[in-house]
Amino acid sequence: MGALDECYYNVELQNGVSFGDCIEPETMVIEDSVRVLLQGLGEDINREGLRKTPLRVAKALREGTRGYNQNVKDIVSCALFPEAGLESKVGHAGGAGGLVIVRDLDFFSYCESCLLPFQVKCHIGYIPSGQRVVGLSKLSRVADVFAKRLQDPDRLANEICASLQQSIKPAGVAVVLQCSHIDFPDFQSAIFDPNHQGWVKTSFKSGSGVFNDDKADVWTDFFSLLKFRNLNAGVMNSRGLICKSWKMGSSDPAMLSAVSSIICSLGEDPSRKELLETPTRFLNWLMYFKNCKLDMKLNGFVRNGNFGLSVEEQHICSVVNLPFWSQCEHHLLPFHGVVHIGYYGSNRVINPVGKSLLQSLVHFYGFKLQVQERLTRQIAESVSSVLGEDVMVVVEANHTCMISRGIEKFGSSTATIAVLGKFSTDPTARAKFLQVIPNMS
Amino acid sequence: MGALDECYYNVELQNGVSFGDCIEPETMVIEDSVRVLLQGLGEDINREGLRKTPLRVAKALREGTRGYNQNVKDIVSCALFPEAGLESKVGHAGGAGGLVIVRDLDFFSYCESCLLPFQVKCHIGYIPSGQRVVGLSKLSRVADVFAKRLQDPDRLANEICASLQQSIKPAGVAVVLQCSHIDFPDFQSAIFDPNHQGWVKTSFKSGSGVFNDDKADVWTDFFSLLKFRNLNAGVMNSRGLICKSWKMGSSDPAMLSAVSSIICSLGEDPSRKELLETPTRFLNWLMYFKNCKLDMKLNGFVRNGNFGLSVEEQHICSVVNLPFWSQCEHHLLPFHGVVHIGYYGSNRVINPVGKSLLQSLVHFYGFKLQVQERLTRQIAESVSSVLGEDVMVVVEANHTCMISRGIEKFGSSTATIAVLGKFSTDPTARAKFLQVIPNMS
Repeated sequence: MGALDECYYNVELQNGVSFGDCIEPETMVIEDSVRVLLQGLGEDINREGLRKTPLRVAKALREGTRGYNQNVKDIVSCALFPEAGLESKVGHAGGAGGLVIVRDLDFFSYCESCLLPFQVKCHIGYIPSGQRVVGLSKLSRVADVFAKRLQDPDRLANEICASLQQSIKPAGVAVVLQCSHIDFPDFQSAIFDPNHQGWVKTSFKSGSGVFNDDKADVWTDFFSLLKFRNLNAGVMNSRGLICKSWKMGSSDPAMLSAVSSIICSLGEDPSRKELLETPTRFLNWLMYFKNCKLDMKLNGFVRNGNFGLSVEEQHICSVVNLPFWSQCEHHLLPFHGVVHIGYYGSNRVINPVGKSLLQSLVHFYGFKLQVQERLTRQIAESVSSVLGEDVMVVVEANHTCMISRGIEKFGSSTATIAVLGKFSTDPTARAKFLQVIPNMS
Repeated sequence: MGALDECYYNVELQNGVSFGDCIEPETMVIEDSVRVLLQGLGEDINREGLRKTPLRVAKALREGTRGYNQNVKDIVSCALFPEAGLESKVGHAGGAGGLVIVRDLDFFSYCESCLLPFQVKCHIGYIPSGQRVVGLSKLSRVADVFAKRLQDPDRLANEICASLQQSIKPAGVAVVLQCSHIDFPDFQSAIFDPNHQGWVKTSFKSGSGVFNDDKADVWTDFFSLLKFRNLNAGVMNSRGLICKSWKMGSSDPAMLSAVSSIICSLGEDPSRKELLETPTRFLNWLMYFKNCKLDMKLNGFVRNGNFGLSVEEQHICSVVNLPFWSQCEHHLLPFHGVVHIGYYGSNRVINPVGKSLLQSLVHFYGFKLQVQERLTRQIAESVSSVLGEDVMVVVEANHTCMISRGIEKFGSSTATIAVLGKFSTDPTARAKFLQVIPNMS
């Protein structure tokens, strides 16, 4: 039994799911497909960091789409409780007519248009009837069943709503989703736009029963209790996620076919209308992270990169909040955030040309299969060759792989530090630079 | 096969864990113990809402303490990756010396002093050495192994730290925990103190290797990157959680023995020093929620409860943010939050006596095994008997059962509404009242 085989059991433990003692055929198909994708990216599939990536990706995808095998009826039927209400002439409360809301449920789902995970903050309301209520946590569990599929947010809202209506049979159900979808790092606009955000937020709603009418007063009650979440009936929209507007190039047929195999192995039909463009979109995303040779790209940069600064080492200077995108090589999932660079220089404010060159450098190291620790070191070394030997780099990031697999740690973020020269020996220099780093939004 | 038996399989599905097809003996012991506790609370263990509570509690406790059966070595060994660092004379980065931090990991743990769940926001840092790094998500998984046990936060920090040090063998590990433990609703002080919060927050830290010295510069680097979390080395403390200072009364021997059985069934030794007082503390908490007869208590209240208000129905008046504590009857876990009451009255501001009477009423309905929908209805009906037929009640709450079981929806909250009289027919009246409700902190 090889090292890889020995790891299978442990990896299953890590992911918190077990599909049995042997790897299922669907998992193996996904593994094979991921190998095709890695090779298409110009990667060596046998290097240490990538060796188990196909298995990790396969497990994560199957775990993340486990909703296909779950049944809402089973979840709800054991958790309907008799609960007295009021006579309707007196008012509405308890098991007859009092609005019940569960707010701020965090999920992730896989976007059916591009196969990347998107975050969902879900708010659910329902109006009990028939003198019974459902266990509050079941609203979350039902939403999770539909989130854990290839989804479109509009359909996700509708499916959660319809299935709760059908299984609880209340007077009405309201579902509001706030979705955050990663934006496409379009070189022409996004990258050099300092206001460009990594995520694009959209909101969706769905109602049944008394919530069927968008203008119904119950919607006002519901939105009143979602206040301070920047939500009201007006901001709702039903346009699709941002990825639908991504510009598409052509893709390698073998890679396209590999993505289709993955979709198939998750139990979906790649010829379903909404999935037809998915392999192309996913590959257009993925190919931004194609491995390319360092020297080829950096030659010109280093030669022209003196930034107009003398190397007089007087002050600690800093350039903060340079955005980056990258792709985690362990899980083939996006991570993105900001890079802060500290150095010793003669002027505290770097000129626009210098900043734009640093931004290019950050993007150069971001746009490949990466780990954050390496990205930080590479940027530091590279900056050092331009700005001198005393350099400090801090990378702050949100990793999709921290939310979209078993661990689901919404709100977590990572920070990595590289210190060169004086910054590695002088704690006061480090502290000074760290003080100027703004709070990560 | 009875209805209860039929549900076993489904409940397992709901909890997201399967201990096999048959119920394990430890689970059955916990179920029996919970029945003893419910009877000690004066509850009918056969009423619909409680019938499956023993099984739900048993499953939740076993799932919530699953860390006893997990092995850190298995988790980490498959996720150590070779990663180039810098030569130490150049600086520290990558797999040799660059600080790596994962922030804001949300967990819950069961307090070994009182058996109630407490929330943990965990920040972990480590300094790689030996040209290798660990997969970032593994820091979260390792922390979870120790969180999912009966814990003391100080020991939790130490165990996470020591096990990461041992399994990764880095230059050092730093762990900072921000814990929120439910406060004891002491009738003498807390209840009538409007500033009293439901949670008490404390922070703890642990360091190994280069973090062994509390004054080491690396701690400054670490805390610099935790800024805006109200954290610095100074606010750390190692005093225990709030429950250690709870005043203790005597408890029923059969109930004490039942709690000891539960502790035993989780794989712990009830005679371990730190666990000796746990059954007494837990029962002192639980007995606050003993069922008592409504008429007996409310008689005096209603007679004296005219609040000095005439029943002239002019304005919508409101009393907001009345705190309450309650215990979820489905999971035997705390939920707490605030109650907002709207009514028609002649003066917009209620006098202190009136507010204090409303607060007593809220506590009366809170301190029992409850569901939020019923609590809302009962408060509304009761308020209506004093303040007239036009009453609206909104209850906003955080449910421990929404974080401390399979679903772990940190940050979620619930809202329930009861509307009587005009409020049930007039959407404008509802909207007016809902507008005055402040954002839940």
